[in-house]
Order: sequence, then structure tokens, then C-alpha cells
Amino acid sequence: AMEKSYVSMFLLLVAMSCALAKDAGTKETKETTAKPKLPQTLSRGWGDQLIWTQTYEEALFRSKHSNKPLMIIHHLDECPHSQALKKAFAEHKEVQKLAEKFILLNLVYETTDKNLSPDGQYVPRILFIDPSLTVRADITGRYSNRLYAYEPTDISLLYSNMQKALKLLKTEL
Amino acid sequence: AMEKSYVSMFLLLVAMSCALAKDAGTKETKETTAKPKLPQTLSRGWGDQLIWTQTYEEALFRSKHSNKPLMIIHHLDECPHSQALKKAFAEHKEVQKLAEKFILLNLVYETTDKNLSPDGQYVPRILFIDPSLTVRADITGRYSNRLYAYEPTDISLLYSNMQKALKLLKTEL
Repeated sequence: AMEKSYVSMFLLLVAMSCALAKDAGTKETKETTAKPKLPQTLSRGWGDQLIWTQTYEEALFRSKHSNKPLMIIHHLDECPHSQALKKAFAEHKEVQKLAEKFILLNLVYETTDKNLSPDGQYVPRILFIDPSLTVRADITGRYSNRLYAYEPTDISLLYSNMQKALKLLKTEL
Repeated sequence: AMEKSYVSMFLLLVAMSCALAKDAGTKETKETTAKPKLPQTLSRGWGDQLIWTQTYEEALFRSKHSNKPLMIIHHLDECPHSQALKKAFAEHKEVQKLAEKFILLNLVYETTDKNLSPDGQYVPRILFIDPSLTVRADITGRYSNRLYAYEPTDISLLYSNMQKALKLLKTEL
């Protein structure tokens, strides 16, 4: 029985998120075959009524100057785990309401900032950045090998993590 | 007469594009007062039927892997010169058609890559990048103090510059 539950747990952890395509060429081929809906939106379905930033530079600037924490969602269109989390995120009224208090960014391409991949570049992966521009490495999901991954069933944990992120770090004066 | 025409020329050059706000705080205040239309689009009105990339990282990746040149338009919502150029760009059928042959990115926030501001960070400013990831410093508009600026009346020059950008640089094999 012990061995069996270990196996289930292991499956859960490997199956819940998508690795990025290792071969850039392969990824490009996939993406050009699936044409985007036009016009494309910044929300990409994560909340059409929310205000989304376009780039990491913009998001950092707005977070710093508005004193709102930044929430960065890394995802991929071709990743079913990303799609499932997006659906849960977009349909959860309290999450959508609370999201208004954040500077929001969703990305399908990784930035060059390694601080945004403390334990790898998997998707879906949600990171919170304090307005002091500190990555909140302490705000994690429930999976030990992919700390910033969430499943759709983790939406309440994500909600409470958003509440945690809104309690800003004390910044030095 | 000589002095008078010099003055007019000078006025033309200073009036045709917008400097970026020097005080980031001021800019932020302005932008938060004007709420964006929801959902926001990646095209931002520069061509809703075109496929736009979201970030500079994505644009570089796609340019390199598709062997299409990259066209980057820097602009600002509160800059009337940007708005006027956008209107000319969006309404010009040949320009819109030719734009399909490019990887496209429009940005309201500057990237950290200084290669994208060879003579400053004014807007509107249009740069072409070869798929070899070389900035085409040779593809310029008609103003000597803001080489990558275009006025709406320069739309034909912009069109011929787009044709020039499509003749790719010879890359080393």
C-alpha cells in the first residue's frame, strides 16, 4: 500500500504541468500551424475584463509606481494543464475580483530574467513580485518539484496566495 | 528668406514626434487616468487583422525561426504624432498587406535593449531587424535628428523601407 501511494503521488507530480518544448524549431512549427484568433487580446482568456500589461518591462514599471504586487502567469496554448487552469481562473469570480488589485501579466514566451524561473521553466507557473521588485519565492503551490505550479483544483490555494501577495513586504525607508 | 526657411525646418523636426516623459511618475499618472478599452488587443489599432507578437523575446524568436524580418513600432497613446501615424498605417491597404510578411511588434514601453534606440527613445519610431538579429540602422526615415521617425505623409517612404527590409541581409553560412 505504501509503495502504491508513492507511485500515485509521483504520477500526479509529473502529469500536472507541461515542460517547455526543448527544440525551439518544433515549438515554432506547432505555433504557426495554429493561427491565433484575430484580433488577439492581452488577456488571452485569463480575464477579458481585467487590465493586462503587455511586457515584463511595463509590468515592473507599473508595479513599482502603483505599489501593487505583480502577478505573472506563464502558460502555453498547447498545454492542456495551462488551459484547464485558465478556465478555472477566468470562471472564479472571487479570483477575478481580487486580480484587479494586481498588475497582471500573462506570458507564453519566457523572459531573459532568471529570477522568474527559480525552479525551472515549466507551465503553468505563477509568480508574485512585490512592488519592491522582489520575487516572492515564499508564495508557492502544493507541489514540491514544481513550486509555482497550480492545478485547477488548487484555485482556492491560489486565491489565498493572492491574498498573501497583497500583504506587501516591508520595504526599507 | 534663408533664415526663415531654416526656422520652419527646425520647427518641423522638433514637432513631428513625441519625447518620452522624463519623469516616470508623471507618465504613470497619465496612463492610469485613461483606462484602456477592454479587452485590450495586441494590435492596439495598428492592424487588427495582422498577427502581432506580444514581447521582444517572442518577436526575436519568431523572426529568427521563420526567417522573416521584424518590424518594431514604438508609440504612445498620448502622443498625437503616434496616433496620426497609426491611422495612416492602419488605413493603407498596401502597407497592411506587406506587413503580413513581417514579424510585428508594437510597444508602448521601451525594452532594455539599447540597440533599439540608436538615436534616442522618441516616438513614433520604427525599426527593422533582420532575421540574423541585426538592427537595420540603414533603413531610416527623412529626418536627420530622429532617423527612425515617420510622419503620416511619409507612409510611402515607410512602404518602400518595408520592401527594403524584406531583402534580407546576406548571412554567413
